[in-house]
Amino acid sequence: MEIEILKKSDIDDTVRRQITELYKQLNDSMKQSPLHQILQEDNHIVFAMCTIEDQIVGIALMATYKVISGHRGMVEDVVVDKNYRGKGIGRKLMERLLEEARNRHLDSVILFSGHQREAARSLYKSLGFTLRDSGVYNLKLN
Amino acid sequence: MEIEILKKSDIDDTVRRQITELYKQLNDSMKQSPLHQILQEDNHIVFAMCTIEDQIVGIALMATYKVISGHRGMVEDVVVDKNYRGKGIGRKLMERLLEEARNRHLDSVILFSGHQREAARSLYKSLGFTLRDSGVYNLKLN
Repeated sequence: MEIEILKKSDIDDTVRRQITELYKQLNDSMKQSPLHQILQEDNHIVFAMCTIEDQIVGIALMATYKVISGHRGMVEDVVVDKNYRGKGIGRKLMERLLEEARNRHLDSVILFSGHQREAARSLYKSLGFTLRDSGVYNLKLN
Repeated sequence: MEIEILKKSDIDDTVRRQITELYKQLNDSMKQSPLHQILQEDNHIVFAMCTIEDQIVGIALMATYKVISGHRGMVEDVVVDKNYRGKGIGRKLMERLLEEARNRHLDSVILFSGHQREAARSLYKSLGFTLRDSGVYNLKLN
């Protein structure tokens, strides 16, 4: 099992196909943004992935940006292949993102997690995340 | 009352001082990131501000980034001067951010709001935002 940070130069048809298929497990109907757009330099995305025998079995992204309240990381698009769950891959991906967050001197990292997703919640808590007394509001434009 | 988008070239000592003072109303103890860093080109921040007679009385920021699930806007640092609340300034700032979100073809806009903040919640709902069944998890690194 290897945890790596995907760079734009790593993208080829195999990577593209594997990530597209993996992401469908999170949301089959959603249009996916092209990888080369996500990894363009000025988009400031950290893209962690887990591979086992050349198969991508997990991904986790972190968008970084600077606002008045600080330099922030926002975790998005965390997916572990359904055949590889319960092996600590989600934790390893998150640890890699947090390592990168510290390297980049971020002030804080934020994520959303569904109230029903008990395993995810307990993972995030064990990594030191605390639940804020806030709701997540969403406006779909497209 | 004017709603404008602050650009890096608009920053001078007066703007810097007024925004610093205004932001202290949200959080007096928090270290504030310098404006020129927030407005650097590759940070992709939309910085809306409301001025009344050359006084900045409200701000709202939106960080934009692209992940697999789409091109997203994240609203942060919404502050209206305590002497100017209840005049619809928060709404006008949000409408300006959403106009910009549409111009930039974002897929969705997200924000957090404290469960206790009734006025804010009702504003966001009236703008079309819906509450997700998710919690906000935060990890402070600094």
